[in-house]
Amino acid sequence: MDINSRFTNIGLSPIVEISEKARLQAPIFEEKSGKSFAYLQRGEVGFDTPDYIKKAIAEALGKGLTKYPKSSGEPWFKDAIVKYLFELGINNLDRENILCTYGGQEGLQLVFNLFEGSQVVSFDPIWSCMLENILPYSKSRIDLVPFIEQGGRLDVDFETLKEKLSKADILYLNNPHNPTGKVFSWEELEKINRLCIDNNVIIVSDEAYRDIVFDGNRHVSMLEFPGEHIISVFTFSKTFAATGLRVGYTVTRNKEHIPLLTNAEYTQTAGVVTPNQYGFKVAVENVEERDKWINYMVSELQGRRDVAHKEIERIFKRDVYKPGGAFYFWLDLNPFIDDNIPMKDRDNFVLEKFLENGIAIIPGGSFSKERYKGYVRLSYSMIDSDGVSEGIRRMGEVLNNLKKAA
Amino acid sequence: MDINSRFTNIGLSPIVEISEKARLQAPIFEEKSGKSFAYLQRGEVGFDTPDYIKKAIAEALGKGLTKYPKSSGEPWFKDAIVKYLFELGINNLDRENILCTYGGQEGLQLVFNLFEGSQVVSFDPIWSCMLENILPYSKSRIDLVPFIEQGGRLDVDFETLKEKLSKADILYLNNPHNPTGKVFSWEELEKINRLCIDNNVIIVSDEAYRDIVFDGNRHVSMLEFPGEHIISVFTFSKTFAATGLRVGYTVTRNKEHIPLLTNAEYTQTAGVVTPNQYGFKVAVENVEERDKWINYMVSELQGRRDVAHKEIERIFKRDVYKPGGAFYFWLDLNPFIDDNIPMKDRDNFVLEKFLENGIAIIPGGSFSKERYKGYVRLSYSMIDSDGVSEGIRRMGEVLNNLKKAA
Repeated sequence: MDINSRFTNIGLSPIVEISEKARLQAPIFEEKSGKSFAYLQRGEVGFDTPDYIKKAIAEALGKGLTKYPKSSGEPWFKDAIVKYLFELGINNLDRENILCTYGGQEGLQLVFNLFEGSQVVSFDPIWSCMLENILPYSKSRIDLVPFIEQGGRLDVDFETLKEKLSKADILYLNNPHNPTGKVFSWEELEKINRLCIDNNVIIVSDEAYRDIVFDGNRHVSMLEFPGEHIISVFTFSKTFAATGLRVGYTVTRNKEHIPLLTNAEYTQTAGVVTPNQYGFKVAVENVEERDKWINYMVSELQGRRDVAHKEIERIFKRDVYKPGGAFYFWLDLNPFIDDNIPMKDRDNFVLEKFLENGIAIIPGGSFSKERYKGYVRLSYSMIDSDGVSEGIRRMGEVLNNLKKAA
Repeated sequence: MDINSRFTNIGLSPIVEISEKARLQAPIFEEKSGKSFAYLQRGEVGFDTPDYIKKAIAEALGKGLTKYPKSSGEPWFKDAIVKYLFELGINNLDRENILCTYGGQEGLQLVFNLFEGSQVVSFDPIWSCMLENILPYSKSRIDLVPFIEQGGRLDVDFETLKEKLSKADILYLNNPHNPTGKVFSWEELEKINRLCIDNNVIIVSDEAYRDIVFDGNRHVSMLEFPGEHIISVFTFSKTFAATGLRVGYTVTRNKEHIPLLTNAEYTQTAGVVTPNQYGFKVAVENVEERDKWINYMVSELQGRRDVAHKEIERIFKRDVYKPGGAFYFWLDLNPFIDDNIPMKDRDNFVLEKFLENGIAIIPGGSFSKERYKGYVRLSYSMIDSDGVSEGIRRMGEVLNNLKKAA
């Protein structure tokens, strides 16, 4: 019996593997050193899910909302999402534009499978799960456009993007961006959108981190631009620290795509857990609790970012890109690594040295097809400000000893 | 941009459409007639989910079990399943044999996609969702072997089965069987298994109704037979009246298949809702509550079956197959239908006549590729004994007037 090649071409995220390594290493490190292990690897949210959402789910269970979900989402849940998006300035939508999914991941998986075998363009680096799972599972090919990094800025290389889009079917845009934390400006999005329209390219806009934007700026959704070529994928996982409750939604003004995606979603899971739909209906409808929670979380994360940024610039002794959203830093450690260490070995070298010293990060190569060995993604979502600060200081010590260690 | 043909070849289950029709028709009928509408269509369970399971989920939420699930299932959940299966007489299993899924449906979808494009054999009639969703989504071809129905018995046509298996990759076996309610005996399963081994055929054993077996008989799982060619797909949906909580598990002794299925499950949903895994860990571990619940539900359903069977034999004036499990009757209404009504129109004719008279059923053609027009599947899971009895009596009146009505 032949095994479908889609199944053999995918793997488990390196992030999951590294988290497992960290889990094993942490107690050994902590006992030996008396210091706290720095969990800087995972895009998990260290906060507890807000109580009012948990209560709403328990209430739904009590009310007997434990029966078959309606395909594509309960009407009352879709209505709540439409209203919520309207409040965020995203209008001209109704129930028929919404597909409820298991987090953003199922939205992305369904959309890329709908256009199986596509030529996809995205920015480099890119979320590892796209490379390891979503793209190979849908037999898509990927062409990556590196950001231009200079003087503490991270800019889009529009010339290269334009050229790549001329041969593409889909642009995968992740904003705020994992792993760099970049928040795209309205002007950048407008220019990207124009290029996609000119080249007849569908935009799959992954807006998982939409609520985590700093410095008083606001997230611009691709859905603020008109057109049926835009599919935005959202999740409540990050916004409400609820990665294990698995609720998200996919939105497009192309009403032919929603029924196709609905049937596929029905085929694979029969629909999204009914009481959890109720939980996130309440999550968005209770505006007071919602805004209080998001403000608290964003201000806490912004504080960690500021602390981390200061420590990082102290280590690098130059301007380092200050991310405008999400909860990651993307750092080039190559200047600290001995020239004799071959590029291909640098990811493992850095990972091992950091783990030994009680720090878990994700090596850069996980976020690219061929670039960024010797880079790391550092997440400040799991541990508090003091832990982040101490972890990065320790990282600095490791880096300053790295050439000697080689 | 080309749409993946897998998405255009699937549809929503006719059961969902008919349930929607029933929902609209019911209040009109009830107001006009003063009688209760008979919901005899859906494989939904009319009981409420047991309280101790709801409480366990709420407890898990309270404990903060709201973060990323572990791919393929939490270790503590898998351990609980292994122990539970052991209690049921299914042994020689460990964590590495278990994949936690979103109900049985995700298990089936993943397994058939793992063997994409297979030649599948099954019995006729067959669960509609296989025909409409699972098989076309995995580009499988299906060859159906009708049961032999005579003198109130429903038997396997082993001669035809043997012939079809010689050209097959997979046997899809649904036991207890939807839509007939047939429970396969150990002798039948043993003979089927031998034929599959001889022909190098994988058995996908859908055991969704495993706990709903009547007359003091016990369900025989395919996993009671040895071999890596057996993949059993289970769900908690029916056992615990929890179709909307979406938890199931897939079990095989082939340890190469589990990691492949795990990666695909991770790709499409990132794993099963964490607190619900805890809920069903408690569901199986609390043996007292579990057995009390299952005994209550099965005895209630057996009572309904007995009432229904008596009413049905009164209408048919002959021996009618008495299902040993699940909660369906599968009835040939053709003797009641006027010869002038063409075979192709009989499903709609019966459906409309029944709906007009306050009865929702699923027409037989939904459960077959080319046979069983003029048959119906009748579910007694949604309404109580009196409702079932009254609904079937009314069905008798409609049937006895059907020739005049044509």
